[in-house]
Amino acid sequence: MSQDLFVVNNVWMMVSIFLVFVMHLGFATLESGLARSKNTVNILFKNSMIPAIGLITYALWGFSVMYPGSDFAGSFFGFSGFGLNMPEGGETSAYNEGYTFWTDFLFQGMFAATAATIVSGAVAERVKLTSFMVFSVLFVGICYPIVGMWKWGGGYLNELTVPFYDFAGSTIVHSVGGWGALAGIILLGSRIGKYVDGKIKPIPGHSIPLATIGVFILWLGWFGFNGGSVLSADPGAVSRVLVMTSLAAAAGAIGGCFLSMILFKSADITMVLNGILAGLVGITAGADQMGVTDSIVIGLVAGALVVLAVVLFDKLKIDDPVGALSVHLVCGIWGTLAVGLFGALAGVDQIISQLIGIGMVGAFSFAFAFVLWYVLKVTMGIRVSEKEELDGLDIHEHKMHAYPDINAPGFEMSLNEKETTVAAGSKKPVAV
Amino acid sequence: MSQDLFVVNNVWMMVSIFLVFVMHLGFATLESGLARSKNTVNILFKNSMIPAIGLITYALWGFSVMYPGSDFAGSFFGFSGFGLNMPEGGETSAYNEGYTFWTDFLFQGMFAATAATIVSGAVAERVKLTSFMVFSVLFVGICYPIVGMWKWGGGYLNELTVPFYDFAGSTIVHSVGGWGALAGIILLGSRIGKYVDGKIKPIPGHSIPLATIGVFILWLGWFGFNGGSVLSADPGAVSRVLVMTSLAAAAGAIGGCFLSMILFKSADITMVLNGILAGLVGITAGADQMGVTDSIVIGLVAGALVVLAVVLFDKLKIDDPVGALSVHLVCGIWGTLAVGLFGALAGVDQIISQLIGIGMVGAFSFAFAFVLWYVLKVTMGIRVSEKEELDGLDIHEHKMHAYPDINAPGFEMSLNEKETTVAAGSKKPVAV
Amino acid sequence: MSQDLFVVNNVWMMVSIFLVFVMHLGFATLESGLARSKNTVNILFKNSMIPAIGLITYALWGFSVMYPGSDFAGSFFGFSGFGLNMPEGGETSAYNEGYTFWTDFLFQGMFAATAATIVSGAVAERVKLTSFMVFSVLFVGICYPIVGMWKWGGGYLNELTVPFYDFAGSTIVHSVGGWGALAGIILLGSRIGKYVDGKIKPIPGHSIPLATIGVFILWLGWFGFNGGSVLSADPGAVSRVLVMTSLAAAAGAIGGCFLSMILFKSADITMVLNGILAGLVGITAGADQMGVTDSIVIGLVAGALVVLAVVLFDKLKIDDPVGALSVHLVCGIWGTLAVGLFGALAGVDQIISQLIGIGMVGAFSFAFAFVLWYVLKVTMGIRVSEKEELDGLDIHEHKMHAYPDINAPGFEMSLNEKETTVAAGSKKPVAV
Repeated sequence: MSQDLFVVNNVWMMVSIFLVFVMHLGFATLESGLARSKNTVNILFKNSMIPAIGLITYALWGFSVMYPGSDFAGSFFGFSGFGLNMPEGGETSAYNEGYTFWTDFLFQGMFAATAATIVSGAVAERVKLTSFMVFSVLFVGICYPIVGMWKWGGGYLNELTVPFYDFAGSTIVHSVGGWGALAGIILLGSRIGKYVDGKIKPIPGHSIPLATIGVFILWLGWFGFNGGSVLSADPGAVSRVLVMTSLAAAAGAIGGCFLSMILFKSADITMVLNGILAGLVGITAGADQMGVTDSIVIGLVAGALVVLAVVLFDKLKIDDPVGALSVHLVCGIWGTLAVGLFGALAGVDQIISQLIGIGMVGAFSFAFAFVLWYVLKVTMGIRVSEKEELDGLDIHEHKMHAYPDINAPGFEMSLNEKETTVAAGSKKPVAV
Repeated sequence: MSQDLFVVNNVWMMVSIFLVFVMHLGFATLESGLARSKNTVNILFKNSMIPAIGLITYALWGFSVMYPGSDFAGSFFGFSGFGLNMPEGGETSAYNEGYTFWTDFLFQGMFAATAATIVSGAVAERVKLTSFMVFSVLFVGICYPIVGMWKWGGGYLNELTVPFYDFAGSTIVHSVGGWGALAGIILLGSRIGKYVDGKIKPIPGHSIPLATIGVFILWLGWFGFNGGSVLSADPGAVSRVLVMTSLAAAAGAIGGCFLSMILFKSADITMVLNGILAGLVGITAGADQMGVTDSIVIGLVAGALVVLAVVLFDKLKIDDPVGALSVHLVCGIWGTLAVGLFGALAGVDQIISQLIGIGMVGAFSFAFAFVLWYVLKVTMGIRVSEKEELDGLDIHEHKMHAYPDINAPGFEMSLNEKETTVAAGSKKPVAV
Repeated sequence: MSQDLFVVNNVWMMVSIFLVFVMHLGFATLESGLARSKNTVNILFKNSMIPAIGLITYALWGFSVMYPGSDFAGSFFGFSGFGLNMPEGGETSAYNEGYTFWTDFLFQGMFAATAATIVSGAVAERVKLTSFMVFSVLFVGICYPIVGMWKWGGGYLNELTVPFYDFAGSTIVHSVGGWGALAGIILLGSRIGKYVDGKIKPIPGHSIPLATIGVFILWLGWFGFNGGSVLSADPGAVSRVLVMTSLAAAAGAIGGCFLSMILFKSADITMVLNGILAGLVGITAGADQMGVTDSIVIGLVAGALVVLAVVLFDKLKIDDPVGALSVHLVCGIWGTLAVGLFGALAGVDQIISQLIGIGMVGAFSFAFAFVLWYVLKVTMGIRVSEKEELDGLDIHEHKMHAYPDINAPGFEMSLNEKETTVAAGSKKPVAV
């Protein structure tokens, strides 16, 4: 390989890093848009800290756990030491044909935090901040890299006769986040007022524009999530992945739109948005193996699945404010299975391998998260008080409002001449 | 050409794809920001579905209509068959020096949906959702690729003695959208309350931050729209295009700012924002042929034109909530003419060719859109009822609010202890 | 160097241009989010005009002042003539190994406007629009390129025995903006209601989501700000810079979070956000020289510094609505010093050179800005009237609201049937 090609490959991977990074902004805006304004600072706080926590823990040990190389690596666990230690030639093509050691770390590190971000939305509006932060550190720092090593680090799932296949992480990233979210929801319970007297009460988010911005940014980010997972700038492979990713997203939008129009008799934008994400999650496991028709079918099915799953989870009283389970867990499983149905080695053997992967990753992630949430529950507690939940987490955990002018209108007035009016009002100024 | 260069070119085109993609987010935020909050979900819904519709129709037949190659291609219409069929060598430089077949499709597909997005803003706040969706499918799926083929697919306008020149689509993309918008506005009529007793009543949008975000994102996207239209990463050509694009945008801001300050005696941010877009649309037809002074002049004129056009359209009672006609139609024409004035072959012959292109594209696009809107009007209807318009499209077409906490404040309260207050209130909870 | 490598390098630099460009969107959303809604249009107006002004003045003369080459260049001032004049071979690698003349201009031009953007936030909510615009033209057009030339144009600071080192502009860009901001704040005074009867009254911004979006976009943009400052796509150097930049940002978030939790007993998201920016500004001077531990330490210290600085400036009654001084000035100085502590040539000599650079740049920038603000104060005036400040700048300077539906709720109602209600209301419709 020419040295020039190495430079190009590395540029492509760096662009992919930027795109995966903006997914954190996408999640932050999507999740805060789908929550109420009284809990918005809380979500943004969590989602701002998660990439920070993810990168630092990944630098300290996560990268060494996920890609241990030959050091202490078994089929299920490996570790090549604390810290980021650049190997010989790590800044040249001696390390890798596609990118430098630093690029490798940063691309994988940006991925790592995604799993916790998915959980953030699902447990929103009632989880205790400090407990969530501890959960994030351990989930991103331990659970994610261990599971990731099983496939991408050369572990057990990669060594099956017909290897488990997960191109960019329908299972390894999205379903891991989904399982962590499910465990959290079960132990947390539903939000006050969600399921009352056997009825499901919708609790709309506070800003559809924020949620829409989030989904567009996530689609954008997915170009790096999937496109970067080719691990080089190979023109045919990468551009094909981008097309299949886009077609699945588009088909997901159409699937979500049509099914929700039929079922609910209204044009529900949240189902279009979740449909796009569903298509994206669905194509992620096999974006490099699918054709045009495959991708459209995978997206359409994912878009429909997400609508049905939202209804189902509500029936089961599993309260997921942002639909994270429907998108990331359900469509993560669907996408992984789709590799067995439409992929290069489609057939019974591949399907069995996919089921083994889905099952093992699911069992470990769910168990890890459940035990972790449970320990936190009996020690620190994981749910805010009823009063805090009703008032909103922002004012208690953060002592501020997301929109002070609106949330605490008395405050702005107090700066005007009309101070007397404010003195008589019941609203108190709030400090940021 | 070296294989390495092909890889670089393809990376550049993929980056351009991402940039053109984010233009859809730019349009979504710009248009929703410039509409009222009661119609915001509606706009976001349309603008989320448009890229999905655009990509799928382009994959099914649009790409084959716009770039038919030698198959059934005449000067005005061609078609190389349904579906996306990768030709021999489509993943290598055998297909194209600059990019793969997949890259080609995706770049052009991202362009395609733009035309309908422009229409979306112009007909906002009173168009019927289903009718608009049908319009979008047919306009993006049929009108756009036919017109595009005339120039970019090697058709009639490309075969003139002095060929019609439109580098990245001032006419082929922006004015096409503009003509479709004009036809829609004429058949729809103005919004209730806009022109009353001979007076023009301003109807401000609901969020200047959203609109501003949209314009910045559109400027960003234009780097790919124009920069990608070089169709390779040729350093001199692409970087020159980026500079001219930026200078025109900057000059457009200054032109819009100064003229509106003189005319309206206030610093109207919407005129700065529209000035930026005007400069961008204006430079698009000749971004590869202009010098520094040309670009600044084109931008300044475009920025001034957009201010005058907004005033003029209002005088003519042509109600365009977001100024789409002033930006995309007026400045699309200006930019196309500017190639005849300042371009490489500036002179009478080029001007005549530009006028032929403007006229033919305009006549076809307007006629196509007018007939389509008319047929929809007499069959499905294209305008919502008076009650729906006054209440807002969100609550009727989508059964939800863009900002539920604010738009329907009773709802959040019902989740608090103060349920009795809510029971007595007149506002009803609203489900998302 | 191969021609292909030149093409790759140029692609990388163009990507960096896009990233630095989006920083202007980041500043616009951050600063408007941290101001009150009644001053939001004003901030967005300024921040939309700044990149336009920056690019045009940089094209007209700024680029020639900052990079004068051998023309009229002394150690402190040079000028190679008005306008953008492409030298021989400016579109090929004859000009530069890394990029074309056009790329060079655009990358540096995007940087230039940053300095004024930093000032914009610090003087927000009381500065007169026209005076600020004049300040911006002169500060970006004269002060910034002169100072920049001292180091990056080959001037005095670059000629020291141990050259002053500032990789991507902790001092040259960020502290310049900070000094300009400090001069402005001193001459403007604090906002009404900020320091009353010896007490510091918090004035919260109006939208935490906007501010958060801004910080994520700024982090994204910093990949280009620092990554592009390598001036080629050199894989080892660039990817290392990206990693160190990210680790410092992450550590800054953690530093800001922990210290503010300890000091204020609450999870203050603005301190996390400012912590991220602090880490980014801190690493900017030496991002190419630092190791993993260095970067984390620099970020942690920067995150802590920003918290302390916010408290300190408030104690000193220096009213900086967005914390620009704490982020850009304080951490700009910290980052520049850190090169002397942890950099390649760490030691007393380097520290002395860093202090010389900090001091000279600070003295010149502060003096330039102070004189300029002072002249504006005694001629045009730099502060709006008390009434304008209390009512908000939007309604006076711009005759519009940022959120018309909310800020002037009577308006929307006037378009409905309920006109009588409005007639009785005290709120007046407002035109955009």
